[in-house]
Amino acid sequence: MKKHNFSAGPCILSPEVITGASEAVKDFNGMGLSLLEISHRDKNFVDVMDEARSLSKEIMGLDDDFEVLFLQGGASLQFCMAPYNFMHSGGKAGYLVTGTWAKKAAAEAALFGEIAEIGSSADRNFSYIPKDLNISDSLDYFHLTSNNTIVGTQMKEIPKTKIPLVCDMSSDIFSKTIDFNQFSLIYAGAQKNLGPAGATLVAVRKSVLGKTSRPIPSMLDYSKHINSDSMFNTPPVFSVYTSLLTLRWIKKIGGLTVVEKQNNLKAKYIYEEIDRNSLFDGTADKRDRSNMNVCFLLNDDSLKNKFNSLCSESGIVGINGHRSVGGYRASIYNALPIDSVKTLVDIMKHIELY
Amino acid sequence: MKKHNFSAGPCILSPEVITGASEAVKDFNGMGLSLLEISHRDKNFVDVMDEARSLSKEIMGLDDDFEVLFLQGGASLQFCMAPYNFMHSGGKAGYLVTGTWAKKAAAEAALFGEIAEIGSSADRNFSYIPKDLNISDSLDYFHLTSNNTIVGTQMKEIPKTKIPLVCDMSSDIFSKTIDFNQFSLIYAGAQKNLGPAGATLVAVRKSVLGKTSRPIPSMLDYSKHINSDSMFNTPPVFSVYTSLLTLRWIKKIGGLTVVEKQNNLKAKYIYEEIDRNSLFDGTADKRDRSNMNVCFLLNDDSLKNKFNSLCSESGIVGINGHRSVGGYRASIYNALPIDSVKTLVDIMKHIELY
Repeated sequence: MKKHNFSAGPCILSPEVITGASEAVKDFNGMGLSLLEISHRDKNFVDVMDEARSLSKEIMGLDDDFEVLFLQGGASLQFCMAPYNFMHSGGKAGYLVTGTWAKKAAAEAALFGEIAEIGSSADRNFSYIPKDLNISDSLDYFHLTSNNTIVGTQMKEIPKTKIPLVCDMSSDIFSKTIDFNQFSLIYAGAQKNLGPAGATLVAVRKSVLGKTSRPIPSMLDYSKHINSDSMFNTPPVFSVYTSLLTLRWIKKIGGLTVVEKQNNLKAKYIYEEIDRNSLFDGTADKRDRSNMNVCFLLNDDSLKNKFNSLCSESGIVGINGHRSVGGYRASIYNALPIDSVKTLVDIMKHIELY
Repeated sequence: MKKHNFSAGPCILSPEVITGASEAVKDFNGMGLSLLEISHRDKNFVDVMDEARSLSKEIMGLDDDFEVLFLQGGASLQFCMAPYNFMHSGGKAGYLVTGTWAKKAAAEAALFGEIAEIGSSADRNFSYIPKDLNISDSLDYFHLTSNNTIVGTQMKEIPKTKIPLVCDMSSDIFSKTIDFNQFSLIYAGAQKNLGPAGATLVAVRKSVLGKTSRPIPSMLDYSKHINSDSMFNTPPVFSVYTSLLTLRWIKKIGGLTVVEKQNNLKAKYIYEEIDRNSLFDGTADKRDRSNMNVCFLLNDDSLKNKFNSLCSESGIVGINGHRSVGGYRASIYNALPIDSVKTLVDIMKHIELY
């Protein structure tokens, strides 16, 4: 039975990406060797890394001040790399606390200096994005989380500021057009819209680096990785290659303009049903709803088993809400087909008549 | 043509590991989903992580004080994690500098405190292992590199000391029987004897942790990873699974006793030829020769092209020496069949008659 994979991450990837990754594990580029057993210094892989970095820049439309890196450690390691590289000794950084992950990012940065909480939606369980922020120009940087997977909120506008903007885009990178050049640091764990867990995309402005006096361990130093063309040490070869397959796929289908249209359509389809169908309630404020993670509650407890069975019988997987929110979470990342959304919406309509 | 893969790492893996990894990318455990697109919290993957950790402990015969973790960032990230977790503020650690990687490890630790160079073979380009070390009991820990890939040396005896022993085993872990319990911290990038680049095996004694006052970023804190069962954040799913396939393979063929016998045989075969054949010279002192990386020079320049052609025509790949040493490096890790060694030795014999 065909699965409809609504997992929050690691999550669905395009079928051609999966096939390409599987084949490369058997034989890479007709070398007679697996992708897993060649040197990362082999030209066959150096070309992969180069293309992954340049294609990321191209798709995001980044200016020449940016370098793209593929590192390890996920967004969680970036939580300490950002302050390590951007916060001055005795410095202060601003954080917008829009969810569990933003809160964790701020807590890590607090090991390095003072943290100003520029805004927080903790008062209503992170169900909205704080607006009208007052961002001091004296901060070392301002950290945002563009999409919040647990309650399902997304920043539709990026606040204007003169200080370096740092953004955790793990869960909505490559999902829509946006002016990526307004940021100084963008980072994203690969395992949503890009590839398998184990690689982290980092886009960083060279002009912002090298301004703190703090000694930085080499592996946490963006400059060291830039100077080594993202091969300071052995990179996560398989995750980088599979991410490249996704980048090629994004370009092939028309880039972020087309991806955004598809994502808007999927989101509209399911949010309209949530709002129409009295059995369901969305968990996030309407204007802040995420186009990646659609979180909702079924407000009639007696129908839960039936709804779960119908989903299961239709091949729907990964739809349980995060344990801290309950209910359901339909993650509708780039690679999820509209058919999967339609299958889910049909079940939502069906259970209304049950 | 069948390839004989002598790459220094990422390197050859067992064919059944490659096949299993490729299949899991297509469909994992008959779930109808790729290994790449399931949640790391799914029981199917939690079981993988649990088995990888427990099987590692079993194969190494580690006592109950040990926890095994699968982290990201390679040995290079461990270069700073070790001092972060083991070095006291104002503390001092000992390093045995047996190669380029050991030197890098010591340089990273120097950001955290004082480094005592307990021994170094830099005077003869790291071609031997320093002996008769004087290790002070007042050091926070003593750091070793058990195998050095560039010149091809390996520690045949581990020095006795009362202080915590830390060992970078990236290039010879799981290659032989050894008393792993004499260490307090063992770490190894997966990409030699274990699996694809992107995972790092860490075995750490719980009783040695929590003794420094230094604030540690969460991702660099062994205790945080232990408390989260090696899932503090999304682990490198594919690399961990493929490593598990190798661990199962090691157990199936008879564990480290059998692996060691095979490795000794392969090493004996090629070193005997190096010593017998006047065209070749080994780069490392005989008593310190590595059973993983056999480094040698062809001392007649006029035969190099011929030797390279013969290797290439026989399907031998990855045999170039490190750029800092030149010559040849035959890496004969666990998964390399004796046939590949025989193919190489036949060419060495053949060129003598040329």
